[in-house]
Amino acid sequence: MTALPIRQPVRIIGIDPGLRRTGWGVIEAEGNRLVYVACGSVEPPEGLPLSSRLLAIHEGLASVLSQHKPMEAAVEQTFVNKDGVATLKLGQARGVAMLAPAMFGITVAEYAPNQVKKTVVGAGHADKNQIAVMLKILLPKAEPPSADAADALAIAITHAHHRQSAALRLKVVGI
Amino acid sequence: MTALPIRQPVRIIGIDPGLRRTGWGVIEAEGNRLVYVACGSVEPPEGLPLSSRLLAIHEGLASVLSQHKPMEAAVEQTFVNKDGVATLKLGQARGVAMLAPAMFGITVAEYAPNQVKKTVVGAGHADKNQIAVMLKILLPKAEPPSADAADALAIAITHAHHRQSAALRLKVVGI
Repeated sequence: MTALPIRQPVRIIGIDPGLRRTGWGVIEAEGNRLVYVACGSVEPPEGLPLSSRLLAIHEGLASVLSQHKPMEAAVEQTFVNKDGVATLKLGQARGVAMLAPAMFGITVAEYAPNQVKKTVVGAGHADKNQIAVMLKILLPKAEPPSADAADALAIAITHAHHRQSAALRLKVVGI
Repeated sequence: MTALPIRQPVRIIGIDPGLRRTGWGVIEAEGNRLVYVACGSVEPPEGLPLSSRLLAIHEGLASVLSQHKPMEAAVEQTFVNKDGVATLKLGQARGVAMLAPAMFGITVAEYAPNQVKKTVVGAGHADKNQIAVMLKILLPKAEPPSADAADALAIAITHAHHRQSAALRLKVVGI
């Protein structure tokens, strides 16, 4: 029988990108235990040229990454709808939001929206209120200032859950 | 009668963003005179995670901006089609491509595709071949290695033309 490896807590950032508001949430996961670290949102001033708004998102996230030093990152896979203009805007914010962790040497995992809902609430079609209730139970100290910050925390929880499942699968295979 | 201002050449970068290949082209404009400086394309290795591909685009463009030190930048406004997945991919590359100049303190101008064609060829519905022929005339020393690099040069030419028109309009208004 080999000794169990010492579990190091892993610090995870979840990001919910948007051109008007990009939410972020940082948690620590140690085995099944989740600890809230911080959350918030980056809101570029309106009326700036697109390149300046993207710069504001980048600088906001870079500052969060410098301060909270997450080791892993996750974003939600984007639901592509028929509104091409909205999809393009979201794509631009999403590109910048995924670049920031990459510039800090962190690869960004992606999760489908119903995977996030299923992980946090237990059902793939949960609504915002159900997610908020579960967030309050899973991370009682979190008081997300916006829906985007709450979503970002939900994405971080999803990554904490799935990275562990992946590690457990590896362990079983390795026996 | 006031003395005419001394015309300083302005160095312009045009960027044609894409997740598989992002073209760039640098020119200098002094009044009506255009001088070719350099062009090329950034091609992230395939098979990398999305965040790593976005990082490769960012690092490629940052290196070009450091080396050629443009003072102004332009990208093409994106034609939004019904393929949401393609629009999202392009949006992500475009966000990162617009961020790079912004990080160097350069605001990025945007031009509609038919505005680029009209400026370079004289007609809003010109095809790739007509643009290539006009590029050869306007920038004889340029030998763009890809269609994206050629498009990037066409965007830079469009900006050179329109920034001057805007300056002339200001001058007329100022009389």
